[in-house]
Amino acid sequence: MNTELRSKTRTTADWQAADAAHFLHPFTDFQSLAKKGSRIITKAENIYLTDSDGQRILDAMSGLWCVNVGYGQQALIDAATRQLKELPFYNAFFQTATPPAIELAELLAEVTPPQFKHVFFTGSGSEGNDTIVRMVRRYWDIQGQPGRSVIISRRNGYHGSTMAGASLGGMSAMHAQGGLPIPGIEHIDQPYWVEHGQHRPAPSRLKAGDPPRGAGDEGDLGAGISREQFGLVAARWLEEKILAVGVERVAAFIGEPIQGAGGVIIPPATYWPEIQRICDKYGILLVSDEVITGFGRTGRWFGCETFGARPDLMTFAKGVTSGYIPLGGVMVGERVAEALIERGGEFEHGYTYSGHPVACAVALANIKLIRELGLVERVHDDVGPYLAEGFESLKAHPLVGDAESCGLMGAVLLVKDKDGLKPFDESVGIGMVCRGHCFREGLIMRAVGNRMIIAPPLVITRAQIDEMMALIRRCLDLTLADARREGWL
Amino acid sequence: MNTELRSKTRTTADWQAADAAHFLHPFTDFQSLAKKGSRIITKAENIYLTDSDGQRILDAMSGLWCVNVGYGQQALIDAATRQLKELPFYNAFFQTATPPAIELAELLAEVTPPQFKHVFFTGSGSEGNDTIVRMVRRYWDIQGQPGRSVIISRRNGYHGSTMAGASLGGMSAMHAQGGLPIPGIEHIDQPYWVEHGQHRPAPSRLKAGDPPRGAGDEGDLGAGISREQFGLVAARWLEEKILAVGVERVAAFIGEPIQGAGGVIIPPATYWPEIQRICDKYGILLVSDEVITGFGRTGRWFGCETFGARPDLMTFAKGVTSGYIPLGGVMVGERVAEALIERGGEFEHGYTYSGHPVACAVALANIKLIRELGLVERVHDDVGPYLAEGFESLKAHPLVGDAESCGLMGAVLLVKDKDGLKPFDESVGIGMVCRGHCFREGLIMRAVGNRMIIAPPLVITRAQIDEMMALIRRCLDLTLADARREGWL
Repeated sequence: MNTELRSKTRTTADWQAADAAHFLHPFTDFQSLAKKGSRIITKAENIYLTDSDGQRILDAMSGLWCVNVGYGQQALIDAATRQLKELPFYNAFFQTATPPAIELAELLAEVTPPQFKHVFFTGSGSEGNDTIVRMVRRYWDIQGQPGRSVIISRRNGYHGSTMAGASLGGMSAMHAQGGLPIPGIEHIDQPYWVEHGQHRPAPSRLKAGDPPRGAGDEGDLGAGISREQFGLVAARWLEEKILAVGVERVAAFIGEPIQGAGGVIIPPATYWPEIQRICDKYGILLVSDEVITGFGRTGRWFGCETFGARPDLMTFAKGVTSGYIPLGGVMVGERVAEALIERGGEFEHGYTYSGHPVACAVALANIKLIRELGLVERVHDDVGPYLAEGFESLKAHPLVGDAESCGLMGAVLLVKDKDGLKPFDESVGIGMVCRGHCFREGLIMRAVGNRMIIAPPLVITRAQIDEMMALIRRCLDLTLADARREGWL
Repeated sequence: MNTELRSKTRTTADWQAADAAHFLHPFTDFQSLAKKGSRIITKAENIYLTDSDGQRILDAMSGLWCVNVGYGQQALIDAATRQLKELPFYNAFFQTATPPAIELAELLAEVTPPQFKHVFFTGSGSEGNDTIVRMVRRYWDIQGQPGRSVIISRRNGYHGSTMAGASLGGMSAMHAQGGLPIPGIEHIDQPYWVEHGQHRPAPSRLKAGDPPRGAGDEGDLGAGISREQFGLVAARWLEEKILAVGVERVAAFIGEPIQGAGGVIIPPATYWPEIQRICDKYGILLVSDEVITGFGRTGRWFGCETFGARPDLMTFAKGVTSGYIPLGGVMVGERVAEALIERGGEFEHGYTYSGHPVACAVALANIKLIRELGLVERVHDDVGPYLAEGFESLKAHPLVGDAESCGLMGAVLLVKDKDGLKPFDESVGIGMVCRGHCFREGLIMRAVGNRMIIAPPLVITRAQIDEMMALIRRCLDLTLADARREGWL
């Protein structure tokens, strides 16, 4: 095969030239990347990548939040090969179905929370969230309340890159291109204490039933309300928005249990139960975007279980196949499924690859492997807490204003001054400086503004966490040295 | 593996019960399918499917317009297996790329028309068309003409099922659910002579430069304008719409060279050159949706080449991998690419699976196989013309009002009366009656209203075309017998 031949004979410079000439990368400044040259990733095993210069890199981002079982898992490779031989494709449009799609639908009903018995397959998380918009509106049409069409989501949330997905998301840079957002989407602020809580005075009056401020919160008092109180405040922005829009116009609320692309924003424990209470109170649908938090990432099968929400719909993708083959979908809770099935007639929506047999076969193998290896329990009981200890210890570093993790997602906040969590001047681009060191030192860690984030494969061992933490510390030290030398501090 | 076990021990009824309990199929009335039970497709080879009852079915729809090289091609299976072992996933977000994505980008630049040197990868045709909306608007922003945001497309066109894709599409049933279309999309009528041409009087005045009506057109005169003249009339609906919207507000026109899901609507030969002339005249971008017509389907690599258009952007999916692994994308012509690269800064758009290495490796193997087997030339010179002969002969059948094909896409129009192409009463559902016979007789043929359509794998042989034509004739006869017995004629 030419593929093999080229891979073996081409130099990094050859690859970079071909890349710059033909490949428009996602979320990229094409010209500036062409000048610099891409890093060419040629192979991977377990949690390690290798580039075209032979450098070994610890992938602390699981590809792009997806390679939950790590690279090189033979069970997934075999499942794909077997299904490709048997039946590489067939559709589910023509009153037809394939065994892998049916079995995966059954298995998803098993591993998801009890309200989920049905799945609508898509090819990606973007297509899943795009489906959400049409599905929740269709639900309210069937209920005889077509006026309920508005979906509320959060600023700095991420729900994919189709026009509907990007509109649900709250990324201002995305909204600035291509005529976004589409109508009928409303945004509230994110539950990010550093941005919205730390300088916020305590509310003058808390409603009856609110948890009292405990003695443990006192330390936060000078700098604003406690994180727990802030969780309630942030959730109530939803209630305020519902009332502002008008209850009779609101279809659903959608959120990621932990905002991923937004910078691993872990909400206070009080947030999601209060969101749930508000959705219940007004009868609006709750949608949990589990594209990143699904399939064990937070130490439960789904993030909503970690945070105490009971969604009506869940979007999934990424971890469902560990990214080996593209697949996404929407878990449809019984409240919605019953309406669509019993009273909906034809649902005029779907994708050629809805229920793709190879993708579904790989998902089946992947979920079974997650079970066999006990990865969810491992994240919950072992490596998750171990990572949390490591992150706790980072707080002593002079650059680190905060470090937090949940399961195997973590974020380090880089600050100029720990007192009041004062940020570096934006022009410094402190996150990108740190990311540059990570790249050179053989660690993939992502920068989101001044937050350095990770989400390593769930198969990572304690020894590998030690290795990762050492690399993180080294990169923080190098970044600190830069900051001192350049006078950014 | 349990997968294998279940596949071998389950009966059709078992599969159907599990399917009905958990799997919400695309474009389906869930309740009615649950009552009837899905057909379970278990394996496939070459152009034949096998269902769970062991019935062999000739797949004249290539899965869903995608399995161009047929089922069971070892080169594609091997490419997937090899890449899954080497590197099952890596992203192209982090200034990184993988060899298969780069090589595929290079190869696409080779096999597409000369104006295309760059590709933006997506996971599907839907995501590709969704990308088109944002990309053409971004292009005009960069050009300093942000007011150019409206995209013109056609009624009964199909551009996928994301909200933006379905809005570009002109399917009224889709627009009726979920708050579609999104703003900024305008629709014109399709170039379907049977609907809009046959009863249309000849225009009183044709503009200078129009081709004169030839003697060969006379036969059409009594029933309306000729197909060739109708092509010009239909194209000029675009010009009328541009002028109605205002040139300064129009960003692009998008169309499928042949409308696929709309019923294999093959436009008159005059249509696309006139569309091209109009786009050139007003400087608006021309987008060719090649999701169905790409990769040899019409006897050229891309449908725009068959029909004489020179698009600025092309959407592709399906045939790029023959459906073995999901992949889609947008070919970006130099006019647009130059602006995005040189003056665009970061393009704030992309998908996790943009450039998925396994999908790209399979696409590489697929395109190389299409070349090795000379499938494009074969469709153009051999099996395409042979199919056209077969379809021509169908016109003698009492039910057939028209039969036409282009490359390996074909449509048979079922009519109550050949004189004036009078349709059956809609309540008869004549297409679905015929499709039912096809299913029972072991032929997958799709019904779109009163059009029975096919798009078989490009590897189909003359002998297999004979077999297919015999099945089609048999199903037409059975449908005719029904019509006579039930008094529908």
